Amino acid sequence: MVQGDVDMHDMDRGEESAGVPVMFNVSEIDLETGEFTVILNRKDASIMGVRSLDRVKVSTEKDSMVAIVELTDSVVSTGHVGVLKKGRKQLDLEQDAHVRIIPVTRPRSIELIKKRLNGIELSTEEINILTDEITNHRLSDVELSAFVCSTYMNPLNNREITDLTMAMVNSGEIIDIDVDPIFDFHSVGGVPGNKVTLIVVPIVAAAGLSIPKTCSRAISSAGGTADILETIANVTLPGWKIKEITETVGGTIAWGGGVNIAPADDIIIRAEYPLSIDPYSQVIASVLAKKKAVGADHLLMDIPTGPYTKVPSMDLARTYARDFMEVGKNIGINVQCAITYGGQPIGRNIGPALEVKEALQVLENDPPSSSTVEKATSLAGIILEMGGMSGDGKEEALRILRSGEALSKFHEMIKAQGTDHPGITSGQVPLGELIGDVISPGRGYVSSIHNKNLVRIARAAGCPHDKFGGIVLEKKIGHQVEKGDILFRVYSSNEQRLKMALNTANKLIPFSIEGMVLERVPGERVIHST
Amino acid sequence: MVQGDVDMHDMDRGEESAGVPVMFNVSEIDLETGEFTVILNRKDASIMGVRSLDRVKVSTEKDSMVAIVELTDSVVSTGHVGVLKKGRKQLDLEQDAHVRIIPVTRPRSIELIKKRLNGIELSTEEINILTDEITNHRLSDVELSAFVCSTYMNPLNNREITDLTMAMVNSGEIIDIDVDPIFDFHSVGGVPGNKVTLIVVPIVAAAGLSIPKTCSRAISSAGGTADILETIANVTLPGWKIKEITETVGGTIAWGGGVNIAPADDIIIRAEYPLSIDPYSQVIASVLAKKKAVGADHLLMDIPTGPYTKVPSMDLARTYARDFMEVGKNIGINVQCAITYGGQPIGRNIGPALEVKEALQVLENDPPSSSTVEKATSLAGIILEMGGMSGDGKEEALRILRSGEALSKFHEMIKAQGTDHPGITSGQVPLGELIGDVISPGRGYVSSIHNKNLVRIARAAGCPHDKFGGIVLEKKIGHQVEKGDILFRVYSSNEQRLKMALNTANKLIPFSIEGMVLERVPGERVIHST
Repeated sequence: MVQGDVDMHDMDRGEESAGVPVMFNVSEIDLETGEFTVILNRKDASIMGVRSLDRVKVSTEKDSMVAIVELTDSVVSTGHVGVLKKGRKQLDLEQDAHVRIIPVTRPRSIELIKKRLNGIELSTEEINILTDEITNHRLSDVELSAFVCSTYMNPLNNREITDLTMAMVNSGEIIDIDVDPIFDFHSVGGVPGNKVTLIVVPIVAAAGLSIPKTCSRAISSAGGTADILETIANVTLPGWKIKEITETVGGTIAWGGGVNIAPADDIIIRAEYPLSIDPYSQVIASVLAKKKAVGADHLLMDIPTGPYTKVPSMDLARTYARDFMEVGKNIGINVQCAITYGGQPIGRNIGPALEVKEALQVLENDPPSSSTVEKATSLAGIILEMGGMSGDGKEEALRILRSGEALSKFHEMIKAQGTDHPGITSGQVPLGELIGDVISPGRGYVSSIHNKNLVRIARAAGCPHDKFGGIVLEKKIGHQVEKGDILFRVYSSNEQRLKMALNTANKLIPFSIEGMVLERVPGERVIHST
Repeated sequence: MVQGDVDMHDMDRGEESAGVPVMFNVSEIDLETGEFTVILNRKDASIMGVRSLDRVKVSTEKDSMVAIVELTDSVVSTGHVGVLKKGRKQLDLEQDAHVRIIPVTRPRSIELIKKRLNGIELSTEEINILTDEITNHRLSDVELSAFVCSTYMNPLNNREITDLTMAMVNSGEIIDIDVDPIFDFHSVGGVPGNKVTLIVVPIVAAAGLSIPKTCSRAISSAGGTADILETIANVTLPGWKIKEITETVGGTIAWGGGVNIAPADDIIIRAEYPLSIDPYSQVIASVLAKKKAVGADHLLMDIPTGPYTKVPSMDLARTYARDFMEVGKNIGINVQCAITYGGQPIGRNIGPALEVKEALQVLENDPPSSSTVEKATSLAGIILEMGGMSGDGKEEALRILRSGEALSKFHEMIKAQGTDHPGITSGQVPLGELIGDVISPGRGYVSSIHNKNLVRIARAAGCPHDKFGGIVLEKKIGHQVEKGDILFRVYSSNEQRLKMALNTANKLIPFSIEGMVLERVPGERVIHST
């Protein structure tokens, strides 16, 4: 440990530095954690006055980061600092590199998070500070989780959401696509099997509109659109590539986290994962920030509504619609909202590869169920009408689908994004090799399907990390079943996971079957269409 | 990695096991984290279907624990599992030991925490499950933090607090002290320099009452009573020792976390640390659980109230008092509450060793200020009256203090607990060797002192980890100061910490000095007594 000179370079970015920086040799530590962590020898830490979970700033000649300290007696020796993968990448460090380390005070955000926990509104300036510290990885998982909980229990108001949205936009790259206007589409999610983006985007692009769709990975679902399309194509596109594909092909589906747009949002989303919560106000800010960052002028929001979805009531759906439109207007995006039925899964297949397969079946005009076609063409039709089409948008969307133009555009899109499967057909999509069936214990009608429990089963089977796992529904609401009929099949790549999923299915029982007795009171029985 | 047989042993404690257990060799990893973490090679994890942050159960022949998984490509090789210090201690593992590992599902508490985040009351059964999983280290820091935030924003009601209190009592050891009745004392805290426990307990014990006082370490303060007394005596006492000292000496001051009473409470408190929050309902459950576990029959609560304390208003103080008494009654403890003035620090000294020094000065009848004597004897007096004393309790407490009986009892207590300093005097207490002065920028009267900012300065100086750091107030509210007078001195063992503390002092300015102009309107000037 060699003491260096105090340097004003250590005073940037608003951290309060304390004392003099010290030079360390870097040791690689091959561990992944969600946080920027460095490991110091207890003796060095003691001399520097640094304790476990304190923060230090680690600087090279070119760059610096703030990291959280863990202590060791032996993993690194004195004079060395252990830097984990993420930090080495951030600072572009070689083994045996030298870094300067200086203790810094706790981030200002901790007081701001406490303010929000106390139900106090944050100012624009405070939201900017919070977003900046989140973006610069100044907050630990515990602190991020507290922020998420505060906005879950006590949602941000529309002024705060507007500020957070713009702060998140400005926290990262802004993609300047040279077309006008730009269209976009997003689903609030919460309904399993919602693969419609893979159909909507190629229809809209095939109609000649520009749609640079960015999407996310699963938070609490069995697969986000990014997880799904990634099964067969690259979704990690740099900003210039999103721009290029949109300007040439017309449409693209890229992982929002793969490009540096609104990076604060991805960090917040990671903190939502362990608890599977997705706060109301964060949903709005998250969606609109990603849209603003690609320059969207017009946005269609799909809000699936129904029992066991993220939006269980029409009232909440209308509140979402109102706030999306209001915050959208505040930041210069014309937002329209479609409240759709989410009371049971869309189509048949749930899980990344399984959903790609079903989307391809729709694009090939060989759908296993009509609900996916209905929903995708209705939504695409609204976007066509937002683009100034005078006739019936849905009719035109159906025409584009039936003509094969949407399938061609989809193949063109994935080719432009990068794929090992150019021209892939639905029959060529790889699926999990291990399959277990869940059968009906009796005879009757399917009266309801529990979305969240299906998702729990799919996640037990390995989704979204196991791209080939998931669920295929053999029965949906309103279908008649006999004892012993297969209700759904569970796919997995891993035997232990499959067992866990089947155990979960037996415990959670995601299907309600009404006994035959209902058939004798025909006037009171409701047959749902599928 | 060798596959073993499935064994019903893996099904205990309510975890949902999935698949078959696998044998691993143990590698020691010398890192400390707050959580039970094990490190698996990515290849093994993939075969087992285990992902980063999933949970596994690690079993030896004798014991088992559930741990959170981190992945590596190189820190441990295939067939090995890296086990951190805490886990090795828990399972009593040798290097090269073998353990069985099996994936388990997420703890049930996650759904319960979400329920609370949604504002839904938890049932007795649900609180028992939550407490049990907390006690068994099933929850990660992020999950614990979410629980803490949920009770911070949406306090538990008295039924929930009663259930949580008893669940925490039953989560650990119950100390059966063979005297009757048992008295106890506790301060809600939140006022710096509150060293009165070190004076109250010896007075009460010297009067012949039994007082097995357990205390905590700092959460958001510069030092809990355990941190303070530990400067000169052992506070980590096993249950039988607390029993023995209470039965023989009459009084003891032991760290509640050093004995296995209400262990769930200590785990929750750790999760409060990074955010420095201390939820209302958790305060009540935490205090009363520790008291119930030592068999307290009568409890005096000190509730310091005033600006910049934990309890800023009389209304909140009365609410606390009511709820302490109500929950106390529910669990069979007679609680009385004393609302005391906490608008500025108690006495002069803030910080572990400094507070021991001042307490000894009081016990030696050479106090640097009268406020500590006033407060300690008032509180001790109430306890004496709760014990059936017919005369004036405070008079008797003062007599015991002045006679030197309290000092003798204090020395008797620390000798029984274990000390390197038997018969220590105030002049022998070691203090931080580095001192910095904060001086007055002008002439006037001290009109207010900002408790929380003083604590921030003391923590910047290293408190509570640096036992010899802290603050000595040279001026208090109502004192006249001249330009250049020392307002307070900052002590630290570490140069960098001292600099950080002085920087913090310059920024936060914890003293308000009213200019001399106030002297010309004598009717409106309020001179505070100290």
